[in-house]
Amino acid sequence: MNGRKLKELSAADSLRRLASVPLGRVVFTRHALPAVRPVNHIVSDGQIVIRSSSGTILSAELAVFEAVVAFEVDELDVGERLGWSVVVTGVAQLVKDPEEAAHFKSILQPWVAGEMEQVIRIRPEIITGFELVPAAVPG
Amino acid sequence: MNGRKLKELSAADSLRRLASVPLGRVVFTRHALPAVRPVNHIVSDGQIVIRSSSGTILSAELAVFEAVVAFEVDELDVGERLGWSVVVTGVAQLVKDPEEAAHFKSILQPWVAGEMEQVIRIRPEIITGFELVPAAVPG
Repeated sequence: MNGRKLKELSAADSLRRLASVPLGRVVFTRHALPAVRPVNHIVSDGQIVIRSSSGTILSAELAVFEAVVAFEVDELDVGERLGWSVVVTGVAQLVKDPEEAAHFKSILQPWVAGEMEQVIRIRPEIITGFELVPAAVPG
Repeated sequence: MNGRKLKELSAADSLRRLASVPLGRVVFTRHALPAVRPVNHIVSDGQIVIRSSSGTILSAELAVFEAVVAFEVDELDVGERLGWSVVVTGVAQLVKDPEEAAHFKSILQPWVAGEMEQVIRIRPEIITGFELVPAAVPG
């Protein structure tokens, strides 16, 4: 199989792709160590919205501290070795307004049963994306 | 659709699943910010092995500093909302022994065309995994 090369995606295209997939991975720091959790999400007004339970590590790190996080989404075909990946970096914030939180809860159902009473939004500050495309065949 | 619950996986089961999938996401810190890159991998003698190019951010952070990283692999079915995720935390090290590096290069082909002359191994220190299983129907 020929190699692939990385084609950079625009920020707009990256966000569009991120919004097209229900599942991503939130990347954060815990006790100065890198941590990562898969979580389902939506994109609303250009912000990534996720849900969490107050007892979890995710909530402890994100909802309390307004931490800088990364959020990664990809669609990569391991057979064809084609696909794309998007990484957004931004500040995570607990959605405190009750009406806004209720709105997000009505449109974002967590996969895992339980209260998931917290709604967290991530405002993108850095958006990067790339697509794996076939590399040119050497002439 | 009923909710799912999280069933914890043993370390052995987690590593086995991680080895069964060709693609994961390496999570690291760059300029004190969380960063993440998808990368293909193998598992050899209980260590995760990846390849990288010396010019990349990944190599700059991992190969030079022996950084603590997380490595995440998942297989999650967005239709059924079933699947699993494994996260390994450990120290990343450049494989410096030329014979060992050559061995890994012979069995781990990078997806992206280019030199990818560096081989990096991650020694798992913390292994966590969970499976999404159907939650019991309330009686």
